[in-house]
Amino acid sequence: MNYAVESLKKHEEWKGKIEVICRTPLNTRDDLSLAYTPGVAQPCLEIQKDINKSYTLTRRSNLVAVITDGTAVLGLGDIGPEAGMPVMEGKCALFKAFGDVDAFPLCIRSKDVDEIVNTISLLGGSFGGINLEDISAPRCFEIEQKLKKRLDIPVFHDDQHGTAIVVAAGIINALKLVNKKMEDAKIVINGAGSAGISICKLLLQLRAGDVILVDKLGALAPGQDWMNPEQANMAEVTNNEQKTGSLAEIMEGRDIFIGVSAPGIVTKEMVASMADNAIVFAMANPTPEIMPDLALEAGAAVVGTGRSDFPNQINNVLAFPGIFRGALDVRASDINEEMKIAAAKAIASYIPDEKLAKDYIIPSALDRGVAAAVAKAVAKAANDSGVARI
Amino acid sequence: MNYAVESLKKHEEWKGKIEVICRTPLNTRDDLSLAYTPGVAQPCLEIQKDINKSYTLTRRSNLVAVITDGTAVLGLGDIGPEAGMPVMEGKCALFKAFGDVDAFPLCIRSKDVDEIVNTISLLGGSFGGINLEDISAPRCFEIEQKLKKRLDIPVFHDDQHGTAIVVAAGIINALKLVNKKMEDAKIVINGAGSAGISICKLLLQLRAGDVILVDKLGALAPGQDWMNPEQANMAEVTNNEQKTGSLAEIMEGRDIFIGVSAPGIVTKEMVASMADNAIVFAMANPTPEIMPDLALEAGAAVVGTGRSDFPNQINNVLAFPGIFRGALDVRASDINEEMKIAAAKAIASYIPDEKLAKDYIIPSALDRGVAAAVAKAVAKAANDSGVARI
Repeated sequence: MNYAVESLKKHEEWKGKIEVICRTPLNTRDDLSLAYTPGVAQPCLEIQKDINKSYTLTRRSNLVAVITDGTAVLGLGDIGPEAGMPVMEGKCALFKAFGDVDAFPLCIRSKDVDEIVNTISLLGGSFGGINLEDISAPRCFEIEQKLKKRLDIPVFHDDQHGTAIVVAAGIINALKLVNKKMEDAKIVINGAGSAGISICKLLLQLRAGDVILVDKLGALAPGQDWMNPEQANMAEVTNNEQKTGSLAEIMEGRDIFIGVSAPGIVTKEMVASMADNAIVFAMANPTPEIMPDLALEAGAAVVGTGRSDFPNQINNVLAFPGIFRGALDVRASDINEEMKIAAAKAIASYIPDEKLAKDYIIPSALDRGVAAAVAKAVAKAANDSGVARI
Repeated sequence: MNYAVESLKKHEEWKGKIEVICRTPLNTRDDLSLAYTPGVAQPCLEIQKDINKSYTLTRRSNLVAVITDGTAVLGLGDIGPEAGMPVMEGKCALFKAFGDVDAFPLCIRSKDVDEIVNTISLLGGSFGGINLEDISAPRCFEIEQKLKKRLDIPVFHDDQHGTAIVVAAGIINALKLVNKKMEDAKIVINGAGSAGISICKLLLQLRAGDVILVDKLGALAPGQDWMNPEQANMAEVTNNEQKTGSLAEIMEGRDIFIGVSAPGIVTKEMVASMADNAIVFAMANPTPEIMPDLALEAGAAVVGTGRSDFPNQINNVLAFPGIFRGALDVRASDINEEMKIAAAKAIASYIPDEKLAKDYIIPSALDRGVAAAVAKAVAKAANDSGVARI
């Protein structure tokens, strides 16, 4: 199937992938008087007395905003807020289908960090959570951090954390298969943007002992003057031996390659130079850093990509519907590190050890059971870490 | 039925009066590839090339935001943004049920005019129209005017214009019944806030020849120093004889009383002092300026109220679903005066002349046919006045 052509046709047919419907009967005079005036004054007054009632008397308890400024949409770059909307609607459709979360798409006509933060903050009372999407780095870090301070509802930048959680789940299972430990594995992450840095942070939380981040100009190491502030911070807590050099040089002897970078930049030789039983996650879209067949020929033991037409698809849909489902279920005030780790572990353990295989380290993106398992683990972690409010 | 008690119970059961659902199948790998990555890139690129495609490739063409700051919710006053949400959700439910318009409620945590204008403007690309609701005067005038300048989608403050349109429709039919003409009728409007002023403006557009606005301190007339700027403007174009005085004094000899003011402030004597065959619209909620039976006893020929338990209910639901339906159908850039007049006339002429009666001058709020008739007239007026874009 030519997805580009067919998808455009389908979008013309669908006229929107989401729809806002009415949940109440509105056929009689009493119906109107209960759902609207005069009856509606009473729930209004109840919320005025206790703002927490907004969770039980309006849709807020099940409602997430999916928000972009259109500056980093898929791999297409800065295409503008309206042009980002088909992705936001798609995300909302997945939220509903997989997590029974009502999600509403908003695109913001601004690229100014403080203006975006202010706009979203002022809407905070309308939603139970905020999912940021396709906002360019390093603005996305600042926007997320500022919003987390201003709002008392969960704020989650999926491009960072969703990706990190699913990658972490895949790495946990791949390590089991090759009998290696997170603490000992030598890891290289290529692409030190929002996804790469977020993956790195989560793996460090999961006790990864030796990670090197590489970007276009080489390995992140203290003193490299091309690094942005976020990269400089990461250089301080990674790269134990302060190695410098190209990706090819860094990949030698490594146990794990994680690519969130560019198509075709990894050769068979580079994979062959890695440690025995290497794990290769080549997630550039739509063309991976190295195609799976080549990586396997070069000696990789486990290969994952971002694509649905190869085994081991690293797909965010395994994470975000269940994470917000769990957060909403306990009215969490935040999605914290404990909840992200719980989500990664829940996705990994969704596959029983005896079923793990080189071409099955991660559940299918179509498996409707995953979100419920993730939600349960996330809700428990929210409770245990003190951010649950019911 | 005790609406307050029952409505609260229902709101606890409903857990929200609106819901965001998914319009696409998401069961197979192809489904995901068409609705989301990789296929979704194509509609994104089409919109980047031509922003008008956002109307055909996303939900925008059927989507209206219902927005409040919670400062003038029903008759409850400034109860806060979250507390206004049950009304906004109710409005959205009515939009869908009566106009098949997808409407999404947003409450803004600010009372600053420019901050509210900026927030809504930055969201303009996400919607096909903006319905402002329950924002206090005189801020509501300024917010609406500034938004109309900044946005190329319709902006409509329902408390002003929706009310004015339905009142105008009722007056048109009541005048037919009593054989009087708009040009000749002496009209008094009590309550010179956003609704009263908007009613006055629309009646003037409909060629009303003699209108006097009255507020708490008396009739609006040039030189009255208690008037706000909006009231001073109205004083210049109304009150032909520059009368001053109390409501009781002004009502003497008038043909039409329109009240958007306070419960019980009109006496039988005041109605008896009006012209023969007087028309009384007493729309204070929940208790009218004078109860219908008293007004009729005092000699009024036609009486309307805002209540569903009396005949001739002046209910905005007769206007807003059809107005936005019509505006969206032709992708109007504005809801202009021509469209408002067309809506008022369509509501009035929905009742054939031979069926008009003293207790049937306005269609039932439950009549599902009204919105379609209004939409058709509004779309035609948009076309005729040059604001239709398809």
